[in-house]
Amino acid sequence: NSKLKLFSLNSNYPLAQEIAEIMGVELGKSSVKHFSDGEVQISIEESIRGCDVFIVQSTSAPVNEHLMELLIMIDAVKRASAKTINVVIPYYGYARQDRKAKAREPITAKLVANLLETAGADRVIVLDLHAPQIQGFFDILIDHLQAVPILSEYFKTKDLNPDDIVIVSPDHGGVTRARKMAERLKAPIAIIDKRRPKPNVAEVMNIVGNIEGKVCILIDDIIDTAGTITLGANALIQNGAKEVYACCSHPVLSGPAIERIENSVIKELIVTNTIQLSDEKRSPKVKQLSVANLMADAISRVYENKSVSTLFD
Amino acid sequence: NSKLKLFSLNSNYPLAQEIAEIMGVELGKSSVKHFSDGEVQISIEESIRGCDVFIVQSTSAPVNEHLMELLIMIDAVKRASAKTINVVIPYYGYARQDRKAKAREPITAKLVANLLETAGADRVIVLDLHAPQIQGFFDILIDHLQAVPILSEYFKTKDLNPDDIVIVSPDHGGVTRARKMAERLKAPIAIIDKRRPKPNVAEVMNIVGNIEGKVCILIDDIIDTAGTITLGANALIQNGAKEVYACCSHPVLSGPAIERIENSVIKELIVTNTIQLSDEKRSPKVKQLSVANLMADAISRVYENKSVSTLFD
Ligand SMILES: Nc1ncnc2c1ncn2[C@@H]1O[C@H](COP(=O)(O)O)[C@@H](O)[C@H]1O
Ligand SMILES: Nc1ncnc2c1ncn2[C@@H]1O[C@H](COP(=O)(O)O)[C@@H](O)[C@H]1O
Repeated sequence: NSKLKLFSLNSNYPLAQEIAEIMGVELGKSSVKHFSDGEVQISIEESIRGCDVFIVQSTSAPVNEHLMELLIMIDAVKRASAKTINVVIPYYGYARQDRKAKAREPITAKLVANLLETAGADRVIVLDLHAPQIQGFFDILIDHLQAVPILSEYFKTKDLNPDDIVIVSPDHGGVTRARKMAERLKAPIAIIDKRRPKPNVAEVMNIVGNIEGKVCILIDDIIDTAGTITLGANALIQNGAKEVYACCSHPVLSGPAIERIENSVIKELIVTNTIQLSDEKRSPKVKQLSVANLMADAISRVYENKSVSTLFD
Repeated sequence: NSKLKLFSLNSNYPLAQEIAEIMGVELGKSSVKHFSDGEVQISIEESIRGCDVFIVQSTSAPVNEHLMELLIMIDAVKRASAKTINVVIPYYGYARQDRKAKAREPITAKLVANLLETAGADRVIVLDLHAPQIQGFFDILIDHLQAVPILSEYFKTKDLNPDDIVIVSPDHGGVTRARKMAERLKAPIAIIDKRRPKPNVAEVMNIVGNIEGKVCILIDDIIDTAGTITLGANALIQNGAKEVYACCSHPVLSGPAIERIENSVIKELIVTNTIQLSDEKRSPKVKQLSVANLMADAISRVYENKSVSTLFD
């Protein structure tokens, strides 16, 4: 068998380090620096000839910087005669630009898939793509992991009465995700149904499902500015929910997100570490669960050519 | 004939505007903004169906930002049913990473060429690539313009006595470029020959050619931190030059560049506007000449399917 080499780029070194520890390997010696003019300077400081190389990099903010680091690293690894190049992208940026919603829009999620292939990636491991269809944007192999089991396990440790819990999707698009968590927690689901009665009139939030007196768990894939989730939590409380937890896979948390969450009725926000949180994005209300075990397992299975156990959607 | 549409992205709007004015066209209506999380949001606000589209964008600093803007714009233009996509890149970033100088280095200049093609570019117009071989990194058509005529014309207006002038290459790699300017100004050339007598001993600068009592014009393609050019100018004065001008195509001018130039023996630095200079990069010593006429001419010729008159090298 050829040797496994695991490298981390700059976006999420702590996660890569945790994965390496779980796998009992050392992170490959490499560095990403910048020339004086800001151009990315990659250096790989050990031989990777004939190796199965895994590169861990989330394309989180600054997304263009992190994406170019990854593309240039793939190019360097390819030219250094690696046997296979496997790209581990815990958070896949630009995923929301996955269709033309208006005329003359790009489909950047597809462009990025093409760029990764062009650079030389042989295989991609991702977690909770904004839309599972993005898997089909790749012509190379892709493994699609899911955080629902990790998030669900956390709520199990909370010793909540299953009869008290309702899993809530903040919009129509997320019902499948809510359904999956509901199955694991043996709880019913509810949906926040936003409707704009007339143009330029505020949205009305209808709750589909019974939430009165219940502990609501809002689940989404990405929480970005936190507008949807905090307004949704308000609507739940106003409609009689006892308390509201929120959870998501990817804590983008841009702009006013942290302030909104801290000032909201949300009791606790549970997220994963696919995106590294800067200090300003930490809050006592935000709890981060690690996906390192899941990622380490997927990497080992890909390396050993075993099936990667994903939940199909 | 199909319609020509000229768009500018964010790196060098003034140059694109100048090109549009020379060509007597309006810049296409489009904008590059960012979502809250920093992802690029392109919007093209007019139909480009069946048009010959030209996009002006230098991949100058912040290079990864400007490159991704360009790739996403190409994707949007392609999906908006343009007939041809022509990319005008006055300054082609990452050009210095054009070969493996050490083990396991990427060749980012080639990667960028592949990314542009993958996104959907049909043709590329560039100016003074760091190495002319980068033309061969593209499988699509490429037109390679040169700034030597523009720089030379400027020195002609200075009314210098041709017998007084020597064109100086700051290193071995730039002799061809110096040769071309020398032909235009009917002047001889000289070369600064750097040699390190022993490892860890300061470089010695030998001047090959006669510069005593002469007006020296140093020419380079890129001036980045300005170390080479200011040390070269010193060596020329120390070896008896009367005065030293410097010129280049691409004023990268990163880090200490402006300070070094202002404190140097260089009388005047002549650059072009392939890279837009921020306020901190302006100096009374730095004169910027426009390549807009040259670019406008190249765009018109490509559009009319005429030969683009480039100087071959
Ligand atoms: N980074 C982003 N932040 C906010 N909105 C985005 C972003 N990227 C794409 N979009 C827009 O969000 C919409 C898709 O969101 P969704 O309905 O959640 O799939 C599309 O209309 C996109 O134009
Ligand atoms: N942006 C950059 N700034 C400084 N040096 C660079 C840059 N990009 C590449 N290089 C290095 O510069 C060398 C090429 O420079 P040159 O000899 O002028 O062609 C290579 O060894 C590169 O590793």
